[in-house]
Amino acid sequence: MKGYAQIERIEPLNWWVGFKNTQLQLLVKHPNISEALPSISYEGITIKKVHKADSPNYLFVDIDIDKKTKAGNFNIIFKFKNGKTIKQPYQLKERLKLAEDYVGFNSTDAIYLITPDRFANGNPSNDINKNLLEKSIDRSNDYARHGGDIQGITNHLDYIENMGFTAIWPCPVLTNNMPQSSYHGYAMTNFYEIDPRFGTLAEYITLSSEAQKKGIKLIMDQVANHCGLEHWWMKDLPFKDWVNYQKNYENNKANWNNNVTITTNHRRTSNQDRYVSKKDQDVMRDGWFVSSMPDLNQRNPFMAKYIIQNSIWWIEIANLGGIRQDTYPYPDKNFMSQWAGAIMHEYPNFSIVGEEWSINPLLIGYWQTGAKNLDGYESNLKSPMDFAMQRNIVNGLNENENWDSGLVKMYEGLANDFYYTKPEDIMIFPDNHDMSRIFTQLEGDVEKTKMALSYVLTLPRIPQIYYGTEILMNDFAKPGDHGLVRTDFPGGWDGDTINVFTGEGLTNAQKDMQSFVKKLLNYRKTSSAIHHGKTIHFAPEQGVYVLFRIFEDETIVNIINKNEQPITLDLNRFEEIGLKGKTLKNIISNTLVVWDEALVLNNKGSFILTSKK
Amino acid sequence: MKGYAQIERIEPLNWWVGFKNTQLQLLVKHPNISEALPSISYEGITIKKVHKADSPNYLFVDIDIDKKTKAGNFNIIFKFKNGKTIKQPYQLKERLKLAEDYVGFNSTDAIYLITPDRFANGNPSNDINKNLLEKSIDRSNDYARHGGDIQGITNHLDYIENMGFTAIWPCPVLTNNMPQSSYHGYAMTNFYEIDPRFGTLAEYITLSSEAQKKGIKLIMDQVANHCGLEHWWMKDLPFKDWVNYQKNYENNKANWNNNVTITTNHRRTSNQDRYVSKKDQDVMRDGWFVSSMPDLNQRNPFMAKYIIQNSIWWIEIANLGGIRQDTYPYPDKNFMSQWAGAIMHEYPNFSIVGEEWSINPLLIGYWQTGAKNLDGYESNLKSPMDFAMQRNIVNGLNENENWDSGLVKMYEGLANDFYYTKPEDIMIFPDNHDMSRIFTQLEGDVEKTKMALSYVLTLPRIPQIYYGTEILMNDFAKPGDHGLVRTDFPGGWDGDTINVFTGEGLTNAQKDMQSFVKKLLNYRKTSSAIHHGKTIHFAPEQGVYVLFRIFEDETIVNIINKNEQPITLDLNRFEEIGLKGKTLKNIISNTLVVWDEALVLNNKGSFILTSKK
Repeated sequence: MKGYAQIERIEPLNWWVGFKNTQLQLLVKHPNISEALPSISYEGITIKKVHKADSPNYLFVDIDIDKKTKAGNFNIIFKFKNGKTIKQPYQLKERLKLAEDYVGFNSTDAIYLITPDRFANGNPSNDINKNLLEKSIDRSNDYARHGGDIQGITNHLDYIENMGFTAIWPCPVLTNNMPQSSYHGYAMTNFYEIDPRFGTLAEYITLSSEAQKKGIKLIMDQVANHCGLEHWWMKDLPFKDWVNYQKNYENNKANWNNNVTITTNHRRTSNQDRYVSKKDQDVMRDGWFVSSMPDLNQRNPFMAKYIIQNSIWWIEIANLGGIRQDTYPYPDKNFMSQWAGAIMHEYPNFSIVGEEWSINPLLIGYWQTGAKNLDGYESNLKSPMDFAMQRNIVNGLNENENWDSGLVKMYEGLANDFYYTKPEDIMIFPDNHDMSRIFTQLEGDVEKTKMALSYVLTLPRIPQIYYGTEILMNDFAKPGDHGLVRTDFPGGWDGDTINVFTGEGLTNAQKDMQSFVKKLLNYRKTSSAIHHGKTIHFAPEQGVYVLFRIFEDETIVNIINKNEQPITLDLNRFEEIGLKGKTLKNIISNTLVVWDEALVLNNKGSFILTSKK
Repeated sequence: MKGYAQIERIEPLNWWVGFKNTQLQLLVKHPNISEALPSISYEGITIKKVHKADSPNYLFVDIDIDKKTKAGNFNIIFKFKNGKTIKQPYQLKERLKLAEDYVGFNSTDAIYLITPDRFANGNPSNDINKNLLEKSIDRSNDYARHGGDIQGITNHLDYIENMGFTAIWPCPVLTNNMPQSSYHGYAMTNFYEIDPRFGTLAEYITLSSEAQKKGIKLIMDQVANHCGLEHWWMKDLPFKDWVNYQKNYENNKANWNNNVTITTNHRRTSNQDRYVSKKDQDVMRDGWFVSSMPDLNQRNPFMAKYIIQNSIWWIEIANLGGIRQDTYPYPDKNFMSQWAGAIMHEYPNFSIVGEEWSINPLLIGYWQTGAKNLDGYESNLKSPMDFAMQRNIVNGLNENENWDSGLVKMYEGLANDFYYTKPEDIMIFPDNHDMSRIFTQLEGDVEKTKMALSYVLTLPRIPQIYYGTEILMNDFAKPGDHGLVRTDFPGGWDGDTINVFTGEGLTNAQKDMQSFVKKLLNYRKTSSAIHHGKTIHFAPEQGVYVLFRIFEDETIVNIINKNEQPITLDLNRFEEIGLKGKTLKNIISNTLVVWDEALVLNNKGSFILTSKK
């Protein structure tokens, strides 16, 4: 195409034939493009409508792609008033697999959550990019870039597979051209570009395909609520209402900081509250997350289409196995329903997990598709996150045993499942990238950490484990500090003296935990009882909480025992399970146990037994 | 009827014509009655079936009362095998008012909860009854009887009316012929008899009618879950499964104590839990509340009918304005639905409030009629109790203000109303007879106590206030101690030096609180905004939480301010309410306030303003 004048920016970068939704809206950005008239001559393609924006430098072009349209390339010809013409090539690709074959993560999976900058540096040559604002790496600074990248993840898929994970969720990998703290990825400045410091689009696609060869799904972390302040469109916003509180931003741009930003009040209940004031609701939804992250206005229909198409573009281009959507309750909730609905309409077997950081089960349940909400809200979201259960696990294990404290928190927390449409579609995790490491939350107690992990991995849920949990990574030095929580994974960098991938330099405690997680995950991989078995649990008594998962002739027993001293468990209480006389195997130690009158538990810990031979 | 042999016991004691349900089942107890054949000769009356029990001393007689049957008296003739005959008179009464006119309590009401033994001793001659096991009174012992009675309540209806209450809920007044602690009333030994130490049936009916004359509804406290161990039927149980764990009781009767009782595990989530073990569920439902309270088996259909008919008998005989049902989640839940359904079927405008002592809104909502429960459960219960909000109020006022602590607990707690079918039918209370007094819970802080009361009385709820709250009754000496919580109301006994009814001997703080409650309740009495107005609240900021109730031209503002130092409230935030420029009146102080740009709050407290002239 060289030799032709080119349009500055056209998005989506390409599209596909064969979607259920035949509509496509192109965002075209070019100086004074509003004066131009676009035309396309290609069989099956019709321009339905051309929309000018508030800025003269944008056009939004509605295209219909007839069901019979063939894949191929064509030009979009923009004819300006002055007679000047720009030919912009555009591609319609063939879809590589059936929509039904995009199968998202589910309760048969175990997800490994990775902070890409901190996992492994597969390509040191991309560490620094002089075209971007943050121009350095500094591994001694927890908030600087450390050089981890997509290639680093691809290099270690073997490790991830061997550990027993079947899906990976790397935190966002799109360009964050921000002056600082760009490593975390949540301040996107280009929704169609892999951050060059993480790699290329080709490398991302390779990661996806290599992972799939190993039975590992790639989950993309997306953000519909906000972008980074350095997003390219912030210098020339298409509409007066492209971002929320836009006027406030434009009036204060010269001196923009936290004092002048209208930030969200984080009152997430305003999405459900019958009594919410309009004021609180507006500030929650439209306030900026922080002053460096403009809040996108999804009530602008062009923005809404832009975000939906962007998500579909990534699913299709990278053959995704799921999306994790950030800050789920912060955008306009009707838009979020539309967004998730549009994706699930195209990919009926796909999975989306939304982050609602609330320990209130009422809110978690509200967001799950099929919920019988009195206000009629249907989210179309398959998987909310179970921050409630995460808190219950930590409190349950840390608190002293009492009638209403300790393990009963886990027991009663799980009992709340009666409210959820589909508990097994909810994501559970011992911790994540935004909170203190589970080993730290559990006060450095290895046995309690094992209990937490065993519970997470045997629940009727989709489990997610944060990288490094398997080697007891912690943040004792400054609990909860984000930079510290997201510490480098030992062995990910050339010259690391400790190497998790090879086992070099690990302490015995770390090796033991790694082995524990590996055994449990690998058992879980083929366990129908855990994947979709019946669940029965017994109220904690004397510091012991017992959970059963049952499918056909496979019964899993997870005995969570907080007693430091030996205790005898009367097995008659569990008669209804029908295990009497059977020999069970301890999944971790491989020792055999006969399930008879009583079981002596010699030490604190999680005893996971299976009836499977 | 003298001169005839009499049946030892026949229940219900009488019945009425004109119920929708034409079926009546009589329990007949008499030595060897199972050998007898009953007959009735009365137009419209048919004996449909006669059931023998396991004990030879019972008969259950199913009677159909034709719709056209006239009220009147007749004999039931029991003819024994040996030719002996007993004529038992029985009465069918005329109903005194239409079923629709039994209007229960609702959000226009304010309920005064009274412990009858501790409120006022209206008839000292009934204090001691030598025919009953507990034969003494002792006002110096918090767990002994103190002599309060029904007449005492009737005597002080003027006070209750003047305070502004429109309903009373006395704790149970049925016979508790127990050897000790019989004062509380929850261990009933006769479901058809007023405890003689509280008075007579006639006195109870008088209380109801005198109360109604003053616009005060009488709510009866009933117990379907258990009875007292000294209940007459415990000596000769009609069926082998009349009470739960009956065999265990019969085997251990000689040495019956807490160690041999199978007591409930109190795991109330077992009513909802998808994963509950049968074992836990059985123990929860069938275990005895305490060893002195046999757990009734409502799955025995004769017991089920007995309890339902008993409730209807009391509604009809005493013209009740509502029922409070104890320990709601402890009996068989399908029975409870049947029970509440049967009552609501006969009395469509009646009210029942059930005690589910849970701070989990999921459980509270589950029990309310109309809930969209995934398991399909329909409770038929109009009013659950809001223990969740009670806790939120205490925590909200006691905790320091922070993003996620303090007043936000009340704000977010109220936001949970999105889950409730009808929040305005839920009962809210600052405390009750089973917990520490609100003044104690709020650490003896008068202003915080006023805030709690003001919130309770302006919420979209049915408020209940425990007697003595208005004079700062407390239990600092032994927080939460039941006997202490249920302290004598000063002035209720001849010779009391302090008298709440006259004001004699009250401290200034007590008088001030009494006046506060009186003003607020009397305003509430006619406030459409509080009764059924729209609710809008604003997330707490800077220690101030603002709640609005709006109906037509009446707007109530409740400003709950935790600041000890003067603070200026920016009123622009509340623009959407439309109060700008209006003059509001402080309900307590009667001072006028102009609602303009800002409002200076000089001190901590609750400022309740109204737009009503």
